[in-house]
Amino acid sequence: MNDRKTGSGLNMSRRIRRSPFTDRVERHGVRGFSVVNHMLLPKAFAPSVEEDYWHLRQHVQLWDVSTQRQVEIKGPDAARLVQWMSPRDLRGAKVGQCLYVPLVDEQGGMINDPVLLKLADDHYWLSIADSDVLLWAKGLALGANFKVEIDEPDVSPLAVQGPKAEDLLAELFGEEIRNIEFFKFKWIEFQGTQQLMARSGFSRQGGFEIYLRGGHLGGALWDTIWNAGQAFDITPGCPNLIERIEGGLLSYGNEFTRADTPLECGLGNYCSHASDLDYIGKPALERLQEQGISRDMRGVLFDGPPCSAVGVPLPVKSGGLQIGQITSGIWSPRLRRNIGLSMIDRDFWAAGQKVEVMMSKEDERTGEICLLPFS
Amino acid sequence: MNDRKTGSGLNMSRRIRRSPFTDRVERHGVRGFSVVNHMLLPKAFAPSVEEDYWHLRQHVQLWDVSTQRQVEIKGPDAARLVQWMSPRDLRGAKVGQCLYVPLVDEQGGMINDPVLLKLADDHYWLSIADSDVLLWAKGLALGANFKVEIDEPDVSPLAVQGPKAEDLLAELFGEEIRNIEFFKFKWIEFQGTQQLMARSGFSRQGGFEIYLRGGHLGGALWDTIWNAGQAFDITPGCPNLIERIEGGLLSYGNEFTRADTPLECGLGNYCSHASDLDYIGKPALERLQEQGISRDMRGVLFDGPPCSAVGVPLPVKSGGLQIGQITSGIWSPRLRRNIGLSMIDRDFWAAGQKVEVMMSKEDERTGEICLLPFS
Repeated sequence: MNDRKTGSGLNMSRRIRRSPFTDRVERHGVRGFSVVNHMLLPKAFAPSVEEDYWHLRQHVQLWDVSTQRQVEIKGPDAARLVQWMSPRDLRGAKVGQCLYVPLVDEQGGMINDPVLLKLADDHYWLSIADSDVLLWAKGLALGANFKVEIDEPDVSPLAVQGPKAEDLLAELFGEEIRNIEFFKFKWIEFQGTQQLMARSGFSRQGGFEIYLRGGHLGGALWDTIWNAGQAFDITPGCPNLIERIEGGLLSYGNEFTRADTPLECGLGNYCSHASDLDYIGKPALERLQEQGISRDMRGVLFDGPPCSAVGVPLPVKSGGLQIGQITSGIWSPRLRRNIGLSMIDRDFWAAGQKVEVMMSKEDERTGEICLLPFS
Repeated sequence: MNDRKTGSGLNMSRRIRRSPFTDRVERHGVRGFSVVNHMLLPKAFAPSVEEDYWHLRQHVQLWDVSTQRQVEIKGPDAARLVQWMSPRDLRGAKVGQCLYVPLVDEQGGMINDPVLLKLADDHYWLSIADSDVLLWAKGLALGANFKVEIDEPDVSPLAVQGPKAEDLLAELFGEEIRNIEFFKFKWIEFQGTQQLMARSGFSRQGGFEIYLRGGHLGGALWDTIWNAGQAFDITPGCPNLIERIEGGLLSYGNEFTRADTPLECGLGNYCSHASDLDYIGKPALERLQEQGISRDMRGVLFDGPPCSAVGVPLPVKSGGLQIGQITSGIWSPRLRRNIGLSMIDRDFWAAGQKVEVMMSKEDERTGEICLLPFS
């Protein structure tokens, strides 16, 4: 695996959209991108993922996560459509709340795992991972004749992550932002506009996401936070692979795909079995729930020199039998061991189970199963 | 524009899928990728786009175009769903035919522009550009309760393009492949499997696409063609930006998006006005047809040193007024001039219209409008 370059060239085109912050991250010397939702996601800054990891745990970082595009659903049938799309019971959802919602197809296969923002009883944003939920939602609505408007608004999330994020943002936007609870949002003022700020983000280090309405304000918002952030040791950053794996944060397309159900991804708590609730895939998920799942998401700790497992999953074996595959893996400088995320077959998923991780046919590593997050 | 790197790093992950041919293109020293349909599209080989251009016009190239994923639709309502999804009248379509079909939403906005392959009266593949047509089709089918099965099969197109493609493939698969007409397909045998071969491809130099069923056969198919291709001067290649622009071949996400209708993309011939045909977006397209379109796709020839316009469109102006934007542009070594694709406002779209192309605020180039393809 280590022979796979993570720095192959990316050929640019209009189809791979730039964000309102791309100019800024380029100025900061971004060295690599990924592509999510037809848009550039900065993925590498100097000096290294490991230094970024330590920095994120101690200070504050500014992340261009505009690729978390919003699918806006509004109108008289908006609540009905959103509920139909997700196994999570949304009937108690309040305006101002962010809700992690698996979306599944009629077979229970994962379509996406967005964060739902309830803006009003008839107005929602789905802040999506990497698949065209817009087309899914529009198709469903058109087919079933729902009275909704569905579009991708000009909204670009900018994440401020790390333990100093709250102090930094309180200085800029007022002490009241400290009252925003986890996975709740409030409206703040920026240059005469109302902007949505949520306490959320794709790390376990705390922080906020500002859902910027109006891409033309991107440079100004970045610069405002960047300049004030100097006193807080701010750096440009991005979702950190070490921190994400340690924290057990799953990534759609990496840890799970449409071939997997939420029950197998550790997302069973987000699947309602209420008899008076209907959603796409409910019969399939109920059947699976009755049978019992045959694999579940686990952590794998494994030995040997530092590795990076990206692109091609690493087989996880027990006595020669394949029992899983590490879909994201990396060296943890804190745990001083390699760590990976893998679905693991039922007979082997107990914490402490000894396994072998196949870096290649010749390079077999000893390891063991653990529960998530890594501790 | 020239200061934009086209070689920024691409960070790999399982989410950006490898194809059955990725190992082979890596062995051939691929230098850059794009990402299409959550999969790697090789985009750069040594020595240069210009040398690849001349080679493609004279010899034969092997292209990994697995990113043209297939959306398979089968079942009793398959024909009904496919027709509902496209403005093109498909009632006369024959088994064995490939049909270029714009897909639009209820407002007439382009969702994708796939090639439809009719495998049987109740069995179709949509060979797609870069958007999740699978989710669109599944959403429509689920919402409207159509009896269809929709999935992404294990099919990976490999293109053999260039004037020597026919001789090469006839040697490998028999003289009868010469009888495959343009945009028709036949079944060939490869290592005991039946494979679909179409006379098609994303170039104007002729050639074929083999829709490989079974990714495990990828290496063998590549090697078989590669080895026999040595006598024909074969090289690894990819859709060539110069050749594509010269040929007026449009790219979804680059030349047009959901904000554009097929009528404005020069695809009016694919929009049926038959009174007894119903499809999504028909009322919107009919309204636009009546009003008349206010912009249309054109070529722009422009002066000055060789440029590459990718990532950020170049404004096209007339007397200071913006009348379009070049979404893909490059130096044509054959025409000895820069060429670009742009939608152009009605009052300025006549061939010969003088325009200015803004490379930057300081770098204004003189140019003129022409019809497509460039000649």
